[in-house]
Amino acid sequence: MEFMDGTWKKDDCGWDVLTGNDIIGKEAVIDGAIHSIRNMGDVAFLILRRKEGLFQTVLEKDQGNVSVHDLREAMTVRVRGVVNEEERAPHGRELRISSLEILSAPAEPMPMAIDKWKLNTSLEAKLNLRPIALRNIRERAKFKIQEGLTRAFRDFLYGQGFTEIHTPKIGARGAEGGANMFKLSYFHKPAVLAQSPQFYKQMMTGVFDRVFETGPVFRAEKHNTKRHLNEYTSLDFEMGYIDSFEEIMAMETGFLQYAMKLLEKDYAQELSLLNVTLPDVSRIPSVRFDEAKRLVSKKYDRKIRNPYDLEPEEEALIGQYFKEEYNADFVFVTHYPSKKRPFYAMDDPADPTYTLSFDLLFHGLEVTTGGQRIHDYHALRAKIADRGMEEEGMEQYLDTFKHGMPPHGGLGIGLERLTMQLLGEENVREACLFPRDLNRLEP
Amino acid sequence: MEFMDGTWKKDDCGWDVLTGNDIIGKEAVIDGAIHSIRNMGDVAFLILRRKEGLFQTVLEKDQGNVSVHDLREAMTVRVRGVVNEEERAPHGRELRISSLEILSAPAEPMPMAIDKWKLNTSLEAKLNLRPIALRNIRERAKFKIQEGLTRAFRDFLYGQGFTEIHTPKIGARGAEGGANMFKLSYFHKPAVLAQSPQFYKQMMTGVFDRVFETGPVFRAEKHNTKRHLNEYTSLDFEMGYIDSFEEIMAMETGFLQYAMKLLEKDYAQELSLLNVTLPDVSRIPSVRFDEAKRLVSKKYDRKIRNPYDLEPEEEALIGQYFKEEYNADFVFVTHYPSKKRPFYAMDDPADPTYTLSFDLLFHGLEVTTGGQRIHDYHALRAKIADRGMEEEGMEQYLDTFKHGMPPHGGLGIGLERLTMQLLGEENVREACLFPRDLNRLEP
Repeated sequence: MEFMDGTWKKDDCGWDVLTGNDIIGKEAVIDGAIHSIRNMGDVAFLILRRKEGLFQTVLEKDQGNVSVHDLREAMTVRVRGVVNEEERAPHGRELRISSLEILSAPAEPMPMAIDKWKLNTSLEAKLNLRPIALRNIRERAKFKIQEGLTRAFRDFLYGQGFTEIHTPKIGARGAEGGANMFKLSYFHKPAVLAQSPQFYKQMMTGVFDRVFETGPVFRAEKHNTKRHLNEYTSLDFEMGYIDSFEEIMAMETGFLQYAMKLLEKDYAQELSLLNVTLPDVSRIPSVRFDEAKRLVSKKYDRKIRNPYDLEPEEEALIGQYFKEEYNADFVFVTHYPSKKRPFYAMDDPADPTYTLSFDLLFHGLEVTTGGQRIHDYHALRAKIADRGMEEEGMEQYLDTFKHGMPPHGGLGIGLERLTMQLLGEENVREACLFPRDLNRLEP
Repeated sequence: MEFMDGTWKKDDCGWDVLTGNDIIGKEAVIDGAIHSIRNMGDVAFLILRRKEGLFQTVLEKDQGNVSVHDLREAMTVRVRGVVNEEERAPHGRELRISSLEILSAPAEPMPMAIDKWKLNTSLEAKLNLRPIALRNIRERAKFKIQEGLTRAFRDFLYGQGFTEIHTPKIGARGAEGGANMFKLSYFHKPAVLAQSPQFYKQMMTGVFDRVFETGPVFRAEKHNTKRHLNEYTSLDFEMGYIDSFEEIMAMETGFLQYAMKLLEKDYAQELSLLNVTLPDVSRIPSVRFDEAKRLVSKKYDRKIRNPYDLEPEEEALIGQYFKEEYNADFVFVTHYPSKKRPFYAMDDPADPTYTLSFDLLFHGLEVTTGGQRIHDYHALRAKIADRGMEEEGMEQYLDTFKHGMPPHGGLGIGLERLTMQLLGEENVREACLFPRDLNRLEP
């Protein structure tokens, strides 16, 4: 009988060894994709692409078992040879190939020059050829940074006593109601895709006190803007026993501080490739919604047209204001008007036309919506009735409140928007591996 | 201007302090839900439930600011008082209440006795009242253990150079084809929900070499069994530059070893609550599909009815065989017949009627399917043609292979099944917070 014991011996010597001090003058084996070939006649430089970065190898004419004419970009290969110092190469070294094995070969030449520093193609062209375009090392670096943000979110919250949950994406009705839901037939029953894990994460505060989820959400919004996706990844948390809605903002600030430290530590190479300067999150200003509107109106001589909502231009100006006045990249805007928040938002007892809620703006774009929720059964039903809404389909949500719930609140962070703003991208699609929008369902 | 600096001062003294040595004889503040009340006349014991566990508090008659008659189960409260040693109480201590603040009150009595050790209710009743039933500390412990498995999967793979990805759940067509897909209208275009991230994770091996995703998958299968869910969480990975499909099995074995260690370290309380004995994963036997069938047929005197597939009973017997013969909880079954694997599975060059693939059985139930994939463009197209399939809708998937892909393979683990088997549950619904099946779309 054969047994697997969890170990596997690779010929490939690993990146740490390859870029370490001990390998110089010694033989190494590297697996990688041929990212580019520069044939100089007597020698050819083969730049190999691996998950960790690029590595230079050299094939001398009439050395080794292959000719450069047998090789093409996008082949995957295993090379063997001695590593020598070479100060002009990345990592100050290169491998002189003594033998090369072709692991796989492409069927056609590359449709774009992915080895260029910047892909000089339209966003549309990049998205049409997404799995190819992402082989560009700056394109892929964006998604390593996105990984760092997700990872930081989870690790920080584990440390704060949160439990990770997985809630269903197919349900009988949505949390916010309304028309912005994708509908489907679930074994002949009408169903919708979840706009957010809102109801579930709230119900789970009665079980675990603090919960989070990182998963897809679906919005059938007919927006076609640079800020909207119809499917995106939401970083959601919900916490019980809060003293105030500001405790949620403190938790988010703590997450951002943790995330920037993690990026600095583990994603320095990607930050450098993309020339990203991390924002200062040591303290984040907080301003009331109505006050923010007034400040911006005054400073930029702009008329307040709609006192109940922020227009995108107004959000951008709030961002500009706090950058100019406080050198702040982020700003919490609090106390949104009750009529623009969902029924479950808790109204401010001091003035019920406003809610104990907030958005977080990052360089003038909303990246988070959060707030305290109503936890009292009777208050929740009264709010539903006030709004002229139906309780139908919310029975189990309401039953949970009937049987007691801690004071609680939470937030949802749009991962792609957070990534987009951190990277200084103009379009949220740049920060989504395979975006879904009004026109795009593939790849 | 107010600023958030990421800190928040809680009155609640925290679990570590509460269960530590220094608090004895000192005053503490605890937030929690009243899990149960035992009124003895002169004193009443209030057991508080928190995310970390249960804590005993004592309310003496005519002491403090409230009477036990004002209190009900499922209230959430903040209590203040001195912590004294009490060997009969959990953690050997209790808090004598000097003051109690009611944070929230239920509207109705609890519909089930969640403070019982075991909930003596049917699965159906538990699922109907899921957010309430999960307040039972043994019920919720299952999902802490599930968290540990997901966490281990990610942490282990980060350490192995994998990149986390988020792939779209709405797409133009499914990876496996066939009828088992939920269909929806995506802005008047036909769309489906992803059965797996298969195509995407494969395409991404060309970018990051090694990728993983933990997310929901959707199967419109009309099975109504104890093993099937129509939406579940899949732990998926895909790795490039593999030497053999067995390298994938080695990686999974490494994950399981890491997971059991993490559970032992960080989830000991939950394992103990549920009386779970962790399986030995130091070595996992591996057996060919045809050989496994023969072994079981011989030992249990059972006729081989279908040489191309394993019946559930056969899987159970394979599990039994390897338990009896090798004391193994897990077994890899390799080389599944080509006709029962998807088109992208790589056939065994030694005998193309079999594939370089495997399932992992845990106590006789399949918890993983994996294998090596075809990486050559021409070979992939030939296999599609052989099967009489259409390339329509797979253009972008195929284009990726046209432009070169490393030898690769991967697997998908059903998180709920893995949890179910680890806990020794009879029904996979016990290991899913909010199951979706043929009949259940709520809560």
